[in-house]
Amino acid sequence: MTMPPTSVPSGRRIRVGVLGATGAVGQTFIRQLNEHPWFEVTAVAASERSAGKPYAEAARWLEGALPPGVARLTVVECDPSHVDADVVFSALDSSVAGEVEAAFARAGRLVLSNAKNYRMESDVPLVIPEVNAPHLALLETQRKRRGWSGGIVTNANCAATVAAVALAPLHEAFGVKQVFVTTMQAISGAGYPGVPSLDILGNVIPYIGDEEPKIERELNKMLGRVSRHGIDPAPFVVSAHANRVATENGHLVCLSVACQRPVSAEEALHVLHAWRGCAEARGLPSSPDLPLAVSEEPDRPQTRRDVHAGRGMTVTVGRVRKDPLFDVKLVALGHNTVRGAAGGSILNAEVLVSTGVIASR
Amino acid sequence: MTMPPTSVPSGRRIRVGVLGATGAVGQTFIRQLNEHPWFEVTAVAASERSAGKPYAEAARWLEGALPPGVARLTVVECDPSHVDADVVFSALDSSVAGEVEAAFARAGRLVLSNAKNYRMESDVPLVIPEVNAPHLALLETQRKRRGWSGGIVTNANCAATVAAVALAPLHEAFGVKQVFVTTMQAISGAGYPGVPSLDILGNVIPYIGDEEPKIERELNKMLGRVSRHGIDPAPFVVSAHANRVATENGHLVCLSVACQRPVSAEEALHVLHAWRGCAEARGLPSSPDLPLAVSEEPDRPQTRRDVHAGRGMTVTVGRVRKDPLFDVKLVALGHNTVRGAAGGSILNAEVLVSTGVIASR
Amino acid sequence: MTMPPTSVPSGRRIRVGVLGATGAVGQTFIRQLNEHPWFEVTAVAASERSAGKPYAEAARWLEGALPPGVARLTVVECDPSHVDADVVFSALDSSVAGEVEAAFARAGRLVLSNAKNYRMESDVPLVIPEVNAPHLALLETQRKRRGWSGGIVTNANCAATVAAVALAPLHEAFGVKQVFVTTMQAISGAGYPGVPSLDILGNVIPYIGDEEPKIERELNKMLGRVSRHGIDPAPFVVSAHANRVATENGHLVCLSVACQRPVSAEEALHVLHAWRGCAEARGLPSSPDLPLAVSEEPDRPQTRRDVHAGRGMTVTVGRVRKDPLFDVKLVALGHNTVRGAAGGSILNAEVLVSTGVIASR
Amino acid sequence: MTMPPTSVPSGRRIRVGVLGATGAVGQTFIRQLNEHPWFEVTAVAASERSAGKPYAEAARWLEGALPPGVARLTVVECDPSHVDADVVFSALDSSVAGEVEAAFARAGRLVLSNAKNYRMESDVPLVIPEVNAPHLALLETQRKRRGWSGGIVTNANCAATVAAVALAPLHEAFGVKQVFVTTMQAISGAGYPGVPSLDILGNVIPYIGDEEPKIERELNKMLGRVSRHGIDPAPFVVSAHANRVATENGHLVCLSVACQRPVSAEEALHVLHAWRGCAEARGLPSSPDLPLAVSEEPDRPQTRRDVHAGRGMTVTVGRVRKDPLFDVKLVALGHNTVRGAAGGSILNAEVLVSTGVIASR
Repeated sequence: MTMPPTSVPSGRRIRVGVLGATGAVGQTFIRQLNEHPWFEVTAVAASERSAGKPYAEAARWLEGALPPGVARLTVVECDPSHVDADVVFSALDSSVAGEVEAAFARAGRLVLSNAKNYRMESDVPLVIPEVNAPHLALLETQRKRRGWSGGIVTNANCAATVAAVALAPLHEAFGVKQVFVTTMQAISGAGYPGVPSLDILGNVIPYIGDEEPKIERELNKMLGRVSRHGIDPAPFVVSAHANRVATENGHLVCLSVACQRPVSAEEALHVLHAWRGCAEARGLPSSPDLPLAVSEEPDRPQTRRDVHAGRGMTVTVGRVRKDPLFDVKLVALGHNTVRGAAGGSILNAEVLVSTGVIASR
Repeated sequence: MTMPPTSVPSGRRIRVGVLGATGAVGQTFIRQLNEHPWFEVTAVAASERSAGKPYAEAARWLEGALPPGVARLTVVECDPSHVDADVVFSALDSSVAGEVEAAFARAGRLVLSNAKNYRMESDVPLVIPEVNAPHLALLETQRKRRGWSGGIVTNANCAATVAAVALAPLHEAFGVKQVFVTTMQAISGAGYPGVPSLDILGNVIPYIGDEEPKIERELNKMLGRVSRHGIDPAPFVVSAHANRVATENGHLVCLSVACQRPVSAEEALHVLHAWRGCAEARGLPSSPDLPLAVSEEPDRPQTRRDVHAGRGMTVTVGRVRKDPLFDVKLVALGHNTVRGAAGGSILNAEVLVSTGVIASR
Repeated sequence: MTMPPTSVPSGRRIRVGVLGATGAVGQTFIRQLNEHPWFEVTAVAASERSAGKPYAEAARWLEGALPPGVARLTVVECDPSHVDADVVFSALDSSVAGEVEAAFARAGRLVLSNAKNYRMESDVPLVIPEVNAPHLALLETQRKRRGWSGGIVTNANCAATVAAVALAPLHEAFGVKQVFVTTMQAISGAGYPGVPSLDILGNVIPYIGDEEPKIERELNKMLGRVSRHGIDPAPFVVSAHANRVATENGHLVCLSVACQRPVSAEEALHVLHAWRGCAEARGLPSSPDLPLAVSEEPDRPQTRRDVHAGRGMTVTVGRVRKDPLFDVKLVALGHNTVRGAAGGSILNAEVLVSTGVIASR
Repeated sequence: MTMPPTSVPSGRRIRVGVLGATGAVGQTFIRQLNEHPWFEVTAVAASERSAGKPYAEAARWLEGALPPGVARLTVVECDPSHVDADVVFSALDSSVAGEVEAAFARAGRLVLSNAKNYRMESDVPLVIPEVNAPHLALLETQRKRRGWSGGIVTNANCAATVAAVALAPLHEAFGVKQVFVTTMQAISGAGYPGVPSLDILGNVIPYIGDEEPKIERELNKMLGRVSRHGIDPAPFVVSAHANRVATENGHLVCLSVACQRPVSAEEALHVLHAWRGCAEARGLPSSPDLPLAVSEEPDRPQTRRDVHAGRGMTVTVGRVRKDPLFDVKLVALGHNTVRGAAGGSILNAEVLVSTGVIASR
């Protein structure tokens, strides 16, 4: 693919909306879309309570400067008839995402969703483009089966995303058979106001509601293969321990991996170093230089020091070493609200633009 | 055992010394021994540089009030001829512990050591009394083999200690076969000055020098059985991931455990609830009501909220649940400088007193 | 006063209630009242939503073990007819405290309140017993003027409390004229869930709503004198800067103090060392050995290391030194939820018991 | 001044050295000088112990990526005969800076120093260019008096720098008379390893060695006027309280300011908004758009959220309000290692280049 990242293929910026625009994830979408070469935020939608207000007033802006173009937009309700945009990024809570996202898909909009509701549906792509861009082909099946002119594309749980990028090269090369994963997740993963400071200052909370099941099932779908029937999940078993720690951004995961055949740390390092991910994901506005960076320092990756690699889009792995029980142990770190949420959705949308599924008017 | 915990069996307090008394672990010993019913700190030993100074001047006291009796002691060198005490607690750095501890043992002193140097020696007990008090029988072998009139008894690495207490009931009941353990360890585990704040504030460091090998080998020895030849290590394999997090005290460990036969979470919970540990460890001055407490709340144990259970001597486990790969997953938390260091050594000494190995003059 | 602290003067424990019992301050009251020799919690009152439930179910208990006696109590509404207690401790939010506390006072109950609503009323005592126990005489005026058979006694804002204890000796000895105070306040001061972790991790927030005006006016009232007309406020001017920092418990305040006549650091140190506070406050169950401790180490008091002095009831001052603009600079630290809230209210109640204002039945 | 910031006036990059290059401040210099349009790091000097090693090996690189050009340089000793550079930035510790910096000045090098040694010398400029660029004229006096062909220009203590930028507009407009300043300073201000994590996690330390005197005297010199005899210090009195808090970067200061005549918060806000600083400091490679930004939100500036304003070169003030004792209270925040250290030195050097004092060869 040789498309230049600095202009939309067709020459005009694509109008996008953000659903759930006033919350923490919605704000991250707006920050990541600011000055995007292909997309222009033309609609911000939120709950009834916020509708009718200027965005600057409806949102308690959390970080950095609020882009002035968005500040002036009037918040509308999450209804396709009020949202003037061809593509919508959904930062909706799962309690409402189910119905709202379907309504938009039915109304011909392409929905790029962070919500968990449709992730495991057999006709809905769950995509990290470098890992499984071909899964986007499911969109066609989805449209046919559901009679939608639009559609839903999801991205994964933030911790599952970090693990998936680290596991993809190993699975491609050796076939992963068993995975232990322990996460140490940042507070920003819980949104705002999210985790009370009294709960996390000087503390570890070894529990994040519904996180472990998501990690345990989403990895299989993402690393699965497109078949006639949809996605054949990758046939490995995952055991996850999810923990919340006092870091701002960045989910760090410890992994122990068993493969179909004995694999040494050196072999693992080799494939991790060499991996570049699916070609469809390269050269896009949000593509990092490397989707996966390998550190060979003894004590890296570290959350605060490595979270901004590739402007938050690079997953860093390190400490690749022999595992006494499985084949290899390693540590991976990724930015949960960028690679693991808004940035991931936007990269999905960019792939859809570059492959012509999304066209500018 | 029915010995009352408030007086020494023989009626007089036993004179004890602390080696490495000015450092962070040494200070914890002094704090834990303050107003101890059986022991009285009569000697504080440290490096040549500190020798000759009053303790109050030689040590930069870190926490709480310095016991006045100790404040006035003159620091002596770590040489048996200068240390007027029958029992010594060693908080020495491993770079010097090897020679110094042997010199004390040779000179007829009983050394209760936190250092790693002798832990894996075949004739040196590595003891958590509730878990493996019978291992203290090795002391006899040690004395014979080495011609020492004193001896060395060690306690384990702090993270290994927490895991050992959580695993002991499961190993006794079902036979542990495989263990994954991921630790989130407090900064106090690195001593003082220890971890620079720039390294850990808002960060996770997925590496602690030499920690993983210690955890991987010490668990087998501690959960092993006394045999004619010493200790037959428990025949399970451990894979450890050690992480440093921004907590003050308390090592939290996530465990996935496979047993010799299928074990359900309910069965595991049952044996964890019922476990009281070796009888030798009960009713002593430092014994907690429960060596192992079980929480059934969904998000406990938590480091800051549970670290002080049993005045730091109780390990708390929780989140006992089915593991998709092994049998059960659980979380354990213990106080690293109390149960995992000074408090553990002192409890070892108390067992030796109550069994007559240490006698007051 | 020679009353023994371990039994109620009249021999029977006094029945007390907690208003706003399920919130963070309410829980601190329950924790502090647990095993109190004089008081017994017989009623827990909260909002309509909680009423009718067992306390253990209505409250999300935050810290330590919930006392079983309270766990079983059924929560009632904040209405005097439902609250079976002679004395009530109010942890109510200021949005409701005004009406509710008056209703209890009218109904003959003595209300010990943490809320700000009545603090500045001319006939309502605002009391830290060591500082201004004689202000309790206002209660008589209050009862007469308002026709109440009960009454309201308030304690001060938590940061103002710490400053007041540090300033009292200086004001008594030299007459304070001007005060600059900058606070660094702990997150527990904002209750639960309170400060979102995303707002405070690795951050300072130089603003706490309505805190500076409280500090600037409450100090004058507390350090004022009882006169025929009520309280003549102390005639000094206070300028306050309030900041939130990432500490769990303990408000640290930096003070610069100008007095009626030139005062040296040595003179100030002398009176701070000598101060014991009003006699009425000594020897009670919640009285610390020293209401004010002086540290002469160069870098103390420190929040985490000194907050538990006197089981949270001692204010620690240090760094008493010459001020280039005023007379002296110093640093003070106190426990915001103990001395600055629940513990302070309970000590107020104890004074009222010991002086016969509160009688057991 | 119309000089384009993207090329050196004379067309060739100036060769600069860093003294104390392996420490934390030295590393910040290297980071800030990376890809600088005018300066090229050609020499890295450190202690004898590091000399002879490649920089990448001698330094434990703390943050971000080590610029490859510097990584390959061989560390030399801090001796003018070994340092091949016309300008040197000094990150030396004050224990050695005195002699070393003089040696370089004598040898014809211009020294831009962060060390405190020469700051208060009557013939040494202490400069924040927006505040007092004219003080650089002292360099001529210095050369004559000392017979140096080079010279020393210093920048101020990091906390004093933040306060100076906030006070400059008020002093220029109204004449400052009295200042109370309380600082909450980040851990990076203490270098690396610097503050032990056990000292600062969940804590405030109300003491930083020698910091208060520096703040109290450096402000007067910086806001003073050039006269025939050197600098006439600004005739106001400063009282400082310095505190260390658990933030990574950014010193936050609370200020109470009395002026020569009554000044309202509105007047103060007006001059703060309007201030642009000395013309000599504008349009240079390191100049921020605004040296001083004013926030009118009630709870800003905040350390973590505002520290990166102007890539660390903008000081943000807020909460400008009436002071009950003085005229106005306000809060200021600046980046301690950028504006308050390396970035400030580099901006000083840029002014010297743009005014022809430093010429490229």
